[in-house]
Amino acid sequence: MRKNYLLTPGPTPLPPEVCSAQARPIIHHRTPQFQAELKEAFAGLKYIFQTERDVFILSSSGTGAMETAVVNLLSPGETALVIEGGKFGQRWSEICRAHGISVKTLEVEWGKAADPKAVAAALKADLSIKAVFATLCETSTGVTFDIRGFGEAVSASPAVLAVDAVSGLGAIELKTDEWGVDVCVSGSQKGLMLPPGLGFISVSAKAWKMVEASKSSRYYWDLRRAKKAIDKTDTAFTPAISLVIALNESLRMMKEDGLEKIFARHHRMGEAVRAAVKALGLSLFAPSAASDVVTSIYVPSGIDGEKLVKTMRDIYGVTIAGGQDEMKGKLIRIAHMGYIEEFDIIVGISCLEKVLSKMGYKFILGSGVKAAQEVFLQD
Amino acid sequence: MRKNYLLTPGPTPLPPEVCSAQARPIIHHRTPQFQAELKEAFAGLKYIFQTERDVFILSSSGTGAMETAVVNLLSPGETALVIEGGKFGQRWSEICRAHGISVKTLEVEWGKAADPKAVAAALKADLSIKAVFATLCETSTGVTFDIRGFGEAVSASPAVLAVDAVSGLGAIELKTDEWGVDVCVSGSQKGLMLPPGLGFISVSAKAWKMVEASKSSRYYWDLRRAKKAIDKTDTAFTPAISLVIALNESLRMMKEDGLEKIFARHHRMGEAVRAAVKALGLSLFAPSAASDVVTSIYVPSGIDGEKLVKTMRDIYGVTIAGGQDEMKGKLIRIAHMGYIEEFDIIVGISCLEKVLSKMGYKFILGSGVKAAQEVFLQD
Repeated sequence: MRKNYLLTPGPTPLPPEVCSAQARPIIHHRTPQFQAELKEAFAGLKYIFQTERDVFILSSSGTGAMETAVVNLLSPGETALVIEGGKFGQRWSEICRAHGISVKTLEVEWGKAADPKAVAAALKADLSIKAVFATLCETSTGVTFDIRGFGEAVSASPAVLAVDAVSGLGAIELKTDEWGVDVCVSGSQKGLMLPPGLGFISVSAKAWKMVEASKSSRYYWDLRRAKKAIDKTDTAFTPAISLVIALNESLRMMKEDGLEKIFARHHRMGEAVRAAVKALGLSLFAPSAASDVVTSIYVPSGIDGEKLVKTMRDIYGVTIAGGQDEMKGKLIRIAHMGYIEEFDIIVGISCLEKVLSKMGYKFILGSGVKAAQEVFLQD
Repeated sequence: MRKNYLLTPGPTPLPPEVCSAQARPIIHHRTPQFQAELKEAFAGLKYIFQTERDVFILSSSGTGAMETAVVNLLSPGETALVIEGGKFGQRWSEICRAHGISVKTLEVEWGKAADPKAVAAALKADLSIKAVFATLCETSTGVTFDIRGFGEAVSASPAVLAVDAVSGLGAIELKTDEWGVDVCVSGSQKGLMLPPGLGFISVSAKAWKMVEASKSSRYYWDLRRAKKAIDKTDTAFTPAISLVIALNESLRMMKEDGLEKIFARHHRMGEAVRAAVKALGLSLFAPSAASDVVTSIYVPSGIDGEKLVKTMRDIYGVTIAGGQDEMKGKLIRIAHMGYIEEFDIIVGISCLEKVLSKMGYKFILGSGVKAAQEVFLQD
């Protein structure tokens, strides 16, 4: 017997209600029964996105939704500004370049956030920039970016702001309409507590004009086609039916808790993990902009980071993430997003302590767990 | 209490094993555990596709896999020949045009199949044609096309053959390698007995050269990226984990039966439905090329076709499909594909008889069911 604990930044664990919803007999997608499911899903997504605009459902991963944003906003040869502070910021640039879009990057050191003033300055310096691409939570570094600040900077210009909120939506604050997020992109397997397979995208009125003007070639990602379908409470192509039905389960659970309570839970978990890191004598990778959905921690010197992650996972059943790309082997990342609460964090820290101890790292056993407990006691 | 029966050409009903596989706790996709699932899925798909080549798994509907074929094979300005005999043939043309590809169509009357000789002639008449796009089973009409014949015609030319086998793969014969199908595209929700949400695509060596040469802009659909991932038993982007795990359940079931037995079952069901149609005095829409996965039947004069479908579904729980686009209200379509067997067909015909009778259509009650039984008795 071994219980498994998933503390990874996507996929995140699934509530049993979501698991079992997927197991229901399949229904046809062009029936009143499924149309009722879609209606509920569209309304619930508006609540989560904090938008009055349509939220389109795509059958794709989050990257598909990102590409949807790019090809619907810009034409080949046009200019984008990408705020790049990690692997997922780089993905925006890669997608833009793949579509012949000229990319200016606002590069930020991995582990740091970008200053909205730098965004404003970049827009002022290059009036050809038509869209700014940003990331809510950069999963590769555990940094939350100041989307509100970016929104202020961009909304004062003719450009639009597109945000990759795949990691973070439904877990930390993101006021799509109020903050001036013109295009908000997300996926199913993080804050929304679902398996991967659904992408989501909302589009402001300002951005919709660009959707109609874009000359980028597109079919599956074409939001004009999606708009015609959503106006009839339909999807342009066969939807991932079982995932949409499961989505309604998670949306119901989230509405019952309410966004405020959900965000507070994530913040408390972030605080608890950061307190544990400090108590264990470890170092945060992103102390100045640490996100409340995933914490990146330096692997202490003398410890094999990849072995640490593998031992926790393969021997003790606790899956956390290692570093990606340039940070491979140098970081561990503990997620606290979605269907995770305080006692999962206690389990995660406890397992981290156990394996660190066995690997020869010196610290007082239990000190990390206790620091987390102290944070949770304040609830 | 009402039992529901799904006799639609996608989604098709799910085996309970597939339903419950989706409900398992989620696992992370970058683990040895999921890698083992992927390895099994890739091997099983090769068996179903009857190919030695890689079969890529996409998180998308079948249309996404079709777009993957188009953008990886052709560059803007190049010429494609599309064999169009229904809504899904037209989709190939729409996708090509959306990507700036010049489309020549070989139009076939809805309900008829195309002659491979016409394909050979079209290729001879226009040497600029680089790819031929065809459909295995045209779901909108219930016609099976002669893919083997198309393969012979195309393989004698420098062009490649891409087949939309979304409807039909794993239900009727399609020898991808032997017949010279350079690109074979499919989806999860038909013969493979899964919910929608996965797309599949295989690529021959001849077609792979075009993948490397294509100048069409692409990112999520880029098979060069997918190839790098599959060589490490991975996917380019986060896969639809729960659907891949469910896929292995259906692949296991299909391997246990074997393709030969599966194809024989589908053929017998097709024969049974066609016999029932005849016995009831109804007319087949595609008598000359009727497929063994879905049967299109003319709505008899004086009967409201849409009301017939709705009554069967909403009052009696038996969901069949109506006509699409130009055939709306004029056809009913009964699917016999995937997790459907003889007694589901008996139920479907019995319900059709009941509702036709109540709507005033004159025939001998039980004659359709009996005709189907006679076919099944030969097993």
